[in-house]
Amino acid sequence: MTLIKFIEIMAILVGAFSGFIEARRKRMDLVGVFTVAFITAFGGGTLRDILLDKRPLFWVTHQEYAILIFVLALVASPLIRTLRQMVSERLIVIADAVGLGLFSIAGVSAALDANMPIFIASMMGVITGIFGGVLRDIVCNEVPMVFRDGKPYAICAFLGNWLFLLMGKYGVGHDFALWSSALFISGLRLITWKFDLRMGR
Amino acid sequence: MTLIKFIEIMAILVGAFSGFIEARRKRMDLVGVFTVAFITAFGGGTLRDILLDKRPLFWVTHQEYAILIFVLALVASPLIRTLRQMVSERLIVIADAVGLGLFSIAGVSAALDANMPIFIASMMGVITGIFGGVLRDIVCNEVPMVFRDGKPYAICAFLGNWLFLLMGKYGVGHDFALWSSALFISGLRLITWKFDLRMGR
Amino acid sequence: MTLIKFIEIMAILVGAFSGFIEARRKRMDLVGVFTVAFITAFGGGTLRDILLDKRPLFWVTHQEYAILIFVLALVASPLIRTLRQMVSERLIVIADAVGLGLFSIAGVSAALDANMPIFIASMMGVITGIFGGVLRDIVCNEVPMVFRDGKPYAICAFLGNWLFLLMGKYGVGHDFALWSSALFISGLRLITWKFDLRMGR
Repeated sequence: MTLIKFIEIMAILVGAFSGFIEARRKRMDLVGVFTVAFITAFGGGTLRDILLDKRPLFWVTHQEYAILIFVLALVASPLIRTLRQMVSERLIVIADAVGLGLFSIAGVSAALDANMPIFIASMMGVITGIFGGVLRDIVCNEVPMVFRDGKPYAICAFLGNWLFLLMGKYGVGHDFALWSSALFISGLRLITWKFDLRMGR
Repeated sequence: MTLIKFIEIMAILVGAFSGFIEARRKRMDLVGVFTVAFITAFGGGTLRDILLDKRPLFWVTHQEYAILIFVLALVASPLIRTLRQMVSERLIVIADAVGLGLFSIAGVSAALDANMPIFIASMMGVITGIFGGVLRDIVCNEVPMVFRDGKPYAICAFLGNWLFLLMGKYGVGHDFALWSSALFISGLRLITWKFDLRMGR
Repeated sequence: MTLIKFIEIMAILVGAFSGFIEARRKRMDLVGVFTVAFITAFGGGTLRDILLDKRPLFWVTHQEYAILIFVLALVASPLIRTLRQMVSERLIVIADAVGLGLFSIAGVSAALDANMPIFIASMMGVITGIFGGVLRDIVCNEVPMVFRDGKPYAICAFLGNWLFLLMGKYGVGHDFALWSSALFISGLRLITWKFDLRMGR
């Protein structure tokens, strides 16, 4: 298994896991737990692809991820309390930060491939990174967390996306630009988490 | 009028009716009543077609259904209390079960036509069957009922979709597979309703 | 700058402004304020284009509008209280009515270009006019205002759309039909607002 495949699966699992937790908190049943986990994991990329009119969708060509979440929903539902104790918060935040970086840059990259103008591409990256959680919160009947907690989550993605776009403009190699920007986002996210930085309102 | 046309109209009317009731409970006005009824009746199929990138949408090629719901919203709104008394709960549940079976199998079938992999096709069937109600509840600012009441509604659709997919794989005739799977879903739904079966959480 | 460009910008600004206010009322941070303003300004047209499968989206080809809302979100957020006092309610209602007329007729026109049947075209016009606000309210975790306040907002758009469709059918010049219908919607909206007319429920 390549490194990028491994990170991809980790990022999807973290998304699904946050969906599991939120769905259980809302006392949802198996159907709700699976659907919310699925939406959290794939909602951002799906919305991006609908806006770009890109098909087939990621989870359609990789049905193994949908099956994975399905199996996890079957087994995880009764185990969620145990799972939450097993997995430390630190690990979740780290995996989530890695996912944010990877998904955001993948989103920008997909938008550029579709010939989007530059500011729109930077927005598409943020949408890919955060709208899984936004849709999760809408389905769970909450005001989306990422819009109100004042933590610079989307901002980290936005800044890293521009780093990626600028490196592309100034001729930095594509692969290096991709990895370093994703790393920048993940790192910035972890620093702001570590020091509990907030935006003013 | 053919049988399938009749069942189709019944299923759409049942969807619209459940939208009417929910919209009135939320004290919505005429615009809300029409929109929520429309979303409940066509939301699942519309979401499926957007995910599959299939156009034109069902209600676009059959604008008579949209007009029907519009006229019903005009006349039904003041009559909703009377209507609820006229129509027994049993009849609503039966019509809804028939609709669930028909729409789910139609959804799987449309997904197969679009060359979806098998697990995704089974999911598209469930989405077609249940997302009208999910979108209704989101617009009405509720956690979707189908995600939290523990009744095996989506599960019935899921099992019937797999019955249909397996019959296709083992060479059972298309028409027979279609009708028997839809019947299976409707029957299973009615049995679980009759005996008030619940999933564990 | 042409007149239509000026009205277009005004209508988008009014949409964004109503998003700013709602997002601030929900105590959202900068990310929420920008996103909700963006959704309110462009949500209706975006939903219409997704339903019609039309690309590129309006705000993709005109990224300057997205950038404008971004800059406004940066500066407006701390100034929102001052802004609300500076801008009289009368001015907001007038600009909003102009926007409703313009967007609705633009929506009908786009639907006709995509060969939609006539009733569907009238619905697409209403969707373009009102669904920005609907999506704003869903993201802000409210039952959409336009579905429950009993004010004939969507109705004005609906009637004007039919005026436009009928003028087209009876050979009235396209430009005249477009402007007079948009004006009709705006005027009707302002009259119903002035006299505080309500629909019965």
